[in-house]
Amino acid sequence: MQMDKTSEESIELHKAHHGKIEIASKVPINDKHDLSLAYTPGVGAVSEAIDKDTSLAKEYTLKRNTIAIVSDGSAILGLGNLGAEAAIPVMEGKAALFKKFANVDAFPLCLATQDTEEIIQTVKRIAPVFGGVNLEDIAAPRCFEIERRLQNELDIPVMHDDQHGTAVVVLAALMNALKVKSAKPEDVKVVMSGAGAAGSAVAKILVEYGIKDIIVCDSKGAIGAHRSDLTHEKKELAEITNRQNAGGSLRDVIAGADVFIGVSKPGVLDVEMIRSMKEKPVVFALANPVPEIMPDEAAKAGAFIVATGRSDFPNQVNNVLAFPGIFRGALDNGVVQFTEAMFVRAAGNLAACVAKPDPEHILPSIFDEGVTAAVARAIK
Amino acid sequence: MQMDKTSEESIELHKAHHGKIEIASKVPINDKHDLSLAYTPGVGAVSEAIDKDTSLAKEYTLKRNTIAIVSDGSAILGLGNLGAEAAIPVMEGKAALFKKFANVDAFPLCLATQDTEEIIQTVKRIAPVFGGVNLEDIAAPRCFEIERRLQNELDIPVMHDDQHGTAVVVLAALMNALKVKSAKPEDVKVVMSGAGAAGSAVAKILVEYGIKDIIVCDSKGAIGAHRSDLTHEKKELAEITNRQNAGGSLRDVIAGADVFIGVSKPGVLDVEMIRSMKEKPVVFALANPVPEIMPDEAAKAGAFIVATGRSDFPNQVNNVLAFPGIFRGALDNGVVQFTEAMFVRAAGNLAACVAKPDPEHILPSIFDEGVTAAVARAIK
Repeated sequence: MQMDKTSEESIELHKAHHGKIEIASKVPINDKHDLSLAYTPGVGAVSEAIDKDTSLAKEYTLKRNTIAIVSDGSAILGLGNLGAEAAIPVMEGKAALFKKFANVDAFPLCLATQDTEEIIQTVKRIAPVFGGVNLEDIAAPRCFEIERRLQNELDIPVMHDDQHGTAVVVLAALMNALKVKSAKPEDVKVVMSGAGAAGSAVAKILVEYGIKDIIVCDSKGAIGAHRSDLTHEKKELAEITNRQNAGGSLRDVIAGADVFIGVSKPGVLDVEMIRSMKEKPVVFALANPVPEIMPDEAAKAGAFIVATGRSDFPNQVNNVLAFPGIFRGALDNGVVQFTEAMFVRAAGNLAACVAKPDPEHILPSIFDEGVTAAVARAIK
Repeated sequence: MQMDKTSEESIELHKAHHGKIEIASKVPINDKHDLSLAYTPGVGAVSEAIDKDTSLAKEYTLKRNTIAIVSDGSAILGLGNLGAEAAIPVMEGKAALFKKFANVDAFPLCLATQDTEEIIQTVKRIAPVFGGVNLEDIAAPRCFEIERRLQNELDIPVMHDDQHGTAVVVLAALMNALKVKSAKPEDVKVVMSGAGAAGSAVAKILVEYGIKDIIVCDSKGAIGAHRSDLTHEKKELAEITNRQNAGGSLRDVIAGADVFIGVSKPGVLDVEMIRSMKEKPVVFALANPVPEIMPDEAAKAGAFIVATGRSDFPNQVNNVLAFPGIFRGALDNGVVQFTEAMFVRAAGNLAACVAKPDPEHILPSIFDEGVTAAVARAIK
């Protein structure tokens, strides 16, 4: 019901405004003199200055504060592969959030190709005007290669938000959950469901942060050295997680875990499985819009802290807590390549925005003062 | 001197604002509810609606009012091939003018390639989010193929402004010049200097308008059937102009002409040549910033009407009179392909914005009320 009303209102909003972003001029153009400065002939001197020193593009043009949001529409929200046009409202919404929360000018580009090489080529060719690239809703596994190649081949920062934005917010939530539980990162056992873009990045940031005992499950069960069916990316996960090389299903390996993190699909977690976890279990059921288990059921099973991706329950794990600050920091601090260390610091700063975390408040609201600035300070 | 001051002021302006355009949100994002409409979960319904009917992208997203300004930086203003970064301030300035004069949201894309096929591919791949494409400052002859191919292969309108924006304003200026001279289009002899992007488009629109006697010269002299060294585009010009197949230099063929139109370079026209023209000669010396002949010299030689590309002399032929209205009309009227007939009508509407043309007022100012709207009405 509530979803239906939100959907209707959202369609009305989009119909009324014909989208959500527009271009605005930052300079006056009220007479011939203004025109001669913003455009010809005055602009010729600006072009010549940049021709002599390309780095001046960041001083004299929109490149200073503008990023591209790039999607191929292959993994839109929970909807799947709907293609470029259907991706536009999501990317445009994200651009509106970048402006609102971080004063970053972000332009949405939805590509009429889903070929890895073509996406890489296209982004490289449109890069000159941008100070950064936010990759979005691009399906695994191609999202990994696209991000890696663009990070290496461009001189501006590139981040796939479904991976690292998610990872930063999940780690921040976990930091505060462990604080509330009075547990130490090196002592807890984390079991994850989902080894796609988000799952892979979450596992990596947890390792970087210092969690020692992590088992990631995909639809076939625990990922480890014993598996012979792993993709390149899952082999990487097998190398840095599951030190005991545990086998079996999610149901098998979750027994005795302190923390469950789901970035997979509805229904993979049930009451029995939560009951098999250690005392005061932490359950992050982040599949969206329908989580791995509904919060009331998780609570019934004894979950101590529950987080979801939804705004209608406590502890919403929402990328908007991270991505505006990440790019604000990158643009302000001249970052040309993101690192895991930056993301861990960003999670720490984000967690610290909650003065006194409790089971229903492990994350700040994006409307809280200072959240974006806190994240931005970490990206340098 | 005046140029130097303008240049300095322009650089200061660009330094102070870090460019000229920004992204603005058209929707409120002040609380969780706003967030749920502009972004997840509400936006999912908008994506699904567009997935079912792609044409809804024009109703629900920025595609409705947004165009791309695309350049490869190969022919920037009078400066030449300075590449993508140096092109940014020009394209960004143009975006500011689009917003100011036509409320069109235009985003500048400066490409890191000057290869014809790569440019075409790239524009096709980024097209889904745009309602039109303004090609800009791309060198001839590749600009011709790029425009033709994109017009044919995309379902949104594509225009190379250096060609057709220029042609529309030149024709409007000529319409009023002939009115002031009391001459009929079918009776006048027009001699042109320059057969690049602008020259070629100007010649074509003059033919479409009904000028019968046109000779276009390139650096080797009159273009006609007698020439064996012509490119594909110049052969096309030879077919529609120079009916007598006149040979010789510009100096040879300008004798007896009523109108000179230069879109070439400084110094190609001199006092003697103007004196060889018919009485009340019309001289459009549009090379910019330094015209084919300076207006005071042209006047000394007896020119009746002089136009240049400069803002510091009367009769400035400036594309800004045309391009905002052309795309305003295309977006409002659902135009998917521009035609010469639209451009001729646009020139007529633009010319009609000057109630009583006289030798120093053959074009309106872009700051005059109604100019953009008049042009827009023609594009349907």
